[in-house]
This record gives sequence, C-alpha cells and structure tokens, in this order.
Amino acid sequence: MATDKPIRIGVMGCADIARKVSRAINLAPNAVIAAVASRSLEKAKSFASANGYPESTKIHGSYESILEDPEADALYVPLPTSLHVEWAIRAAEKRKHILLEKPVAMNVAEFDKIVAACEANGVQIMDGTMWVHNPRTAKLKEFLSVPERFGQLKSAQSCFSLPGDENFLKNNIRVKPDLDGLGALGDTGWYAIRATLLANNFELPKTVTAFPGAVRNESGVILSCGASLSWEDGKTATIYCSFLADLAMDITAIGTKGTLRVHDYILPYKETEASFITSTKAWFNDLVTAWVDPPSEHTVKTASARSVYVGEIKNKGAKPDVFWPSISRKTQLVVDAVKESLDKNYEQISLSGR
Amino acid sequence: MATDKPIRIGVMGCADIARKVSRAINLAPNAVIAAVASRSLEKAKSFASANGYPESTKIHGSYESILEDPEADALYVPLPTSLHVEWAIRAAEKRKHILLEKPVAMNVAEFDKIVAACEANGVQIMDGTMWVHNPRTAKLKEFLSVPERFGQLKSAQSCFSLPGDENFLKNNIRVKPDLDGLGALGDTGWYAIRATLLANNFELPKTVTAFPGAVRNESGVILSCGASLSWEDGKTATIYCSFLADLAMDITAIGTKGTLRVHDYILPYKETEASFITSTKAWFNDLVTAWVDPPSEHTVKTASARSVYVGEIKNKGAKPDVFWPSISRKTQLVVDAVKESLDKNYEQISLSGR
Repeated sequence: MATDKPIRIGVMGCADIARKVSRAINLAPNAVIAAVASRSLEKAKSFASANGYPESTKIHGSYESILEDPEADALYVPLPTSLHVEWAIRAAEKRKHILLEKPVAMNVAEFDKIVAACEANGVQIMDGTMWVHNPRTAKLKEFLSVPERFGQLKSAQSCFSLPGDENFLKNNIRVKPDLDGLGALGDTGWYAIRATLLANNFELPKTVTAFPGAVRNESGVILSCGASLSWEDGKTATIYCSFLADLAMDITAIGTKGTLRVHDYILPYKETEASFITSTKAWFNDLVTAWVDPPSEHTVKTASARSVYVGEIKNKGAKPDVFWPSISRKTQLVVDAVKESLDKNYEQISLSGR
Repeated sequence: MATDKPIRIGVMGCADIARKVSRAINLAPNAVIAAVASRSLEKAKSFASANGYPESTKIHGSYESILEDPEADALYVPLPTSLHVEWAIRAAEKRKHILLEKPVAMNVAEFDKIVAACEANGVQIMDGTMWVHNPRTAKLKEFLSVPERFGQLKSAQSCFSLPGDENFLKNNIRVKPDLDGLGALGDTGWYAIRATLLANNFELPKTVTAFPGAVRNESGVILSCGASLSWEDGKTATIYCSFLADLAMDITAIGTKGTLRVHDYILPYKETEASFITSTKAWFNDLVTAWVDPPSEHTVKTASARSVYVGEIKNKGAKPDVFWPSISRKTQLVVDAVKESLDKNYEQISLSGR
C-alpha cells in the first residue's frame, strides 16, 4: 500500500511538543514538512527556521490559511485540547489526514464529532501517543500475548508523573481550565491509561473508580490523581498521573504465568535502544532464600522509531484504519470516567454501554 | 545492651515457613534453637532432624508443653492466624518473648489483646515481616529520608502476588476461613501494606478504599484484591495482593524529587546481595529524545541478613521496644480496613481515631 511520494505534513501550531514531532518528521524517510501555521506569521517563520524546516515550507499566519494549503496531505495538530473539536473537524472537512495531540478532546462526545467528520471525509485520524510506535512496544505486546510466557493478565499498574515547576504550575496551558482543562489526567494520565488498555488488549474496563486524594489547582484543574479499573473476570489495573511528582513512567503487568516491567515506556532512557524486564514462572529455591528464574532484561534497538511515528498514516493509503480512532476513543472514555468519578466524590463509574 | 548468652528460641509449630526461620536461627550468632513443638511428638521430632536442630533441642508433643519449657526465652509462632490470639497470650503469660507470624491476628481487636498481655508481662513481641531487617531495607529508608534525593512522598505502589497451584488453592491453610481466614490480604497483602507504611514513615493513611474486582473463593476467603490509601496531603498509595498471579513483589515510590524502585523487596533474587533502583531529578534532554540522569541501580551485600532477623528481640534486653508492636498494629489496621471496604462493597473507610 505504500506510495513513493512522501506524505506532506502541515504543522498546525508551534507548541513545544511540535519541536520534537517536527524533528521526527524531518527524520522520517516517508514524510516531509510542507507547511507550518501559527496565529502570527512571525512566530511560524521563526519556529520553521529554529526547527530546520525545508526552505520550501509554506509559512501560514493563521490556522484557517493552512487548512486551505493544497500542499499539506495531513495536519499535525498540537493545539490546546479545547480547540481540538473545532480545528480537527475543519481539517477533516478540508480532507486533511490528522495527527491529533492527546488528549484528543475534552470528552468523548467531542471526539465522536471529530471521528464522524473524519469518516464523512475519508481521512485518517490518529492521536499523538508516540510510544506505541516504538519498536519496543511491539515486543511488549508480543510478550503479553504469548500464553506460555505471560498467561492471562491479572493486574496492571501504570503511571506517568512529572514535576511541574512554579512557572509550569502557574502558566502552562496544561493547568488552564479553558485550554487543556483535563490537566494531568488528560496529559500524563492519557499515556498511563493507554498503557493499561494496551496491556488488556484494548478491552474496556467494566468500572473505573478514582482514588481519594486527588489534587486540583485553584481553578479546579487536576494536578494529580489515580484510579482503579476493573474487568469482568477479576482483572484489575491502576493508573497514576501527576504534575507534582518526580519523573516516573512505569508499567508493571502481572499475568498468570509471567510479569512485565518497563520503567521508561513513554520515552526510553536512550534514543537508540530501549529495555524491558520479563519473568516467566519465577519461583523460590527450596528454602526460600533466593529466586529461581528471576526476571531478566531485554533490549531492543530503536533507531527506526522516529520514522515509524509518522509513517503509519501514509502507508494506509486511501482507506483510513479504524483501529487508531477506536483506541483514541477508548482512552478518552477512561479519561472521562476518571474525571466523572473525581467529580462525583470518587464514585464507581460503570462503562457498560459507552 | 547485648548479652553474651544467646537467646533460646522455641519453635511453636512445624509450618513450612518454620523451615526457613529455623535455618535463620541456626545461622544467627546470637540465637539458638532450644525447643520445638507440634501437636504430635513424632512430627516435632522429624521436623527437628530434617531441619538440623541441635541434639539438645527439646521436643514437645503439644503447644501447652513448650509454654512450660524453662529453656525457651522466646517463642516463634507460625501457627494459623486464627490461633494467634490464644497462643500468643498464653505465651506472654508464661513470660516468653514472641516472634509472631503475619498476619498477627484476625483483626486489630485480637492483636490489642495480645499486646496487652505482652505489656503486662514485660515481653517483646515482633511480627514475622523478615524483609524489614534486610540490610537493603535500611538503604531504602535512607534514600526515602533524604530530602535532596527523594523529597516528599507523593505516590507509592506496592504489590505481592504469587501463583497458588490447584493444591494450594484447595488445601493450603491460607485459603481456609477457619485457619488463615484473611487469605491473600493477610498473607501477601500484609507485606505490600507494610511496604507502603514504610515508604510513608509509618504514618497511617486517612482513608482506605478497596478496588472493585476482588476475587474470593467459595468460602469467601480473599484470593486477590487491591486498595488505594490516601493521606491528608494528597499522598496516595496502592497495594495489590494475589494468590492468582505470577510471582511479583515490587515497590515503586515516587517523591517530589526522586523515585525508588524495588522488584524483589520481600526476598531478594540472590541471598548474598540485593538491589534497588533510584533516580533523583531525572529529566529529558532538550529535544526530549532521551533522559538526563536516568535511574541507576544500587547493590547491597546481605550476608548478615539472617542473623539480624532473629537478633532484634534479644538485644533489646529486659525492656520491650514498643516500635515493633506499633507497626504490626498499623499494618493490621490497614488489613482490617481493606477487608471492611471489601465487605461493604468497596466503600471508602476512614481510619481516623483507630
């Protein structure tokens, strides 16, 4: 299905995260940056030059303008979450494929509108959860899927915390109710929830219950929270996300026969390789003084990670792949349920029928 | 305070766990096995010979008999939990120091009776949470206590799961309501709760809330469960325990400045050394393609662990140390609260005033 012509990406907004994604696009063999937009021409221009954009990149001084650009096959949208529903729909209506930063929307109702617009216009949508495209993630899924190595999942714990400094906690868009109003839940929690869903083969939980002890800022934006998720068959998971704690991004998934541990699932310690730890049927020696078959570490080369990041959209050709919006939607559903539980004093929220 | 005479231990019951503890006592320079009891003389005799007990060991054919043995300074009590309150009180009344297997009682009311008997008779009581005496645990506490390395705790996740086979799940005393009726919560959950309390400097949580999705056997004994714990200041923790999942025993503690990870906190992979992973103010490089100051592993020699296990009681001399029963009590309180939450359909349980 791959075509020879590289996909031409328009970058719609000059957020900090767009620097990293721009680099990824520049490194990808099958993608090229064709255009960039900001609300000011000046800002777009200096962003383009600071991030090594090609000379040919079209510079747009408004989001409306980049939507009309015939040179852009797809748009990367790192705008604040509250703007997603408007601009993603407008992009779809202009038949642009969309790489939408996470969280994809303020709630699943908004996202459903975006998906409807994409379907109506035959364009692919995919969210910005970059780590699922890392070659290591395929290895994690492989381990989790082999009955003799991992068995059936029983418990998954995932987290993503980062320490916001004074400036971040005061001024970052992710703590502003009118911009990224889902706060840490929508930002770092999105990844932790996605990790949990991935470990559960994307089966939605039956219930979601937030933990007591969530922290909000004075505007009510979530700075730190956690939740438990449960499935029909006694599987449980927990997620934890925070802007108030040290950098940590861990998955611990315990199955009936094996255990998986990842300490850097979102961004590997190194750019060129990534590790994970597995064990299968580890046990103790006779006198319980040491382990037999203790966990072992595995390393995956990740040199190609950056091209995979962008390539997924292009190689699907004309027919969009419904898998990507389906997992975005499930992630958003769980985000919404955690928020609902928090808003309802930690009530247990059922996801049946959602 | 140390005395030259070794402490003389009586082993009150021939449970499987007593094999390991017997070995520890034999290895300890400051302790000696003086007596062993079972409900049958034959069983006590064969246990003594199978576990390398000294020739001089007194063999008792009943628990009553070992209580009367003037050669035993202290009793190690690995009896089923439902028998603790009776036998620990009787031991205290005979002025025997007590090393009591965990969980210490079926509930904190029972444990309070045991502690009252110990106080009235001036004897030390300590529970069988052996890993807190491992030299590594002191290093973990050190890391957690240094403001510049770890800061203030924000989130702690701890677990202990093990896979019970068909025989275990049918016949083991830990799944029998009339023996170790607290099931996985009292057994593996005890350690996970203790780890959480340790990470919180033994401050009791404000609330405890069990997760939906707990699994019980047909007699109602807990085979798998989890809970969230919360403190006044936005600290949260989760515990997970199971007899239905692969062997896993992890602590992830995230502070404001650092993170601690331990994968084998209860029993290190190796007998002679134990590791843990720490990071302090880890962050990303400018383009967020790799970490700066990623976590690093530290190893502690643990050759002396086995003597520490037993020595603690002896070296306190005549005056019992109230620290040990106080942390047993706190652990039991949280066990009770998780059970109460499970019994009340995952209701949030307040620990205020307990």
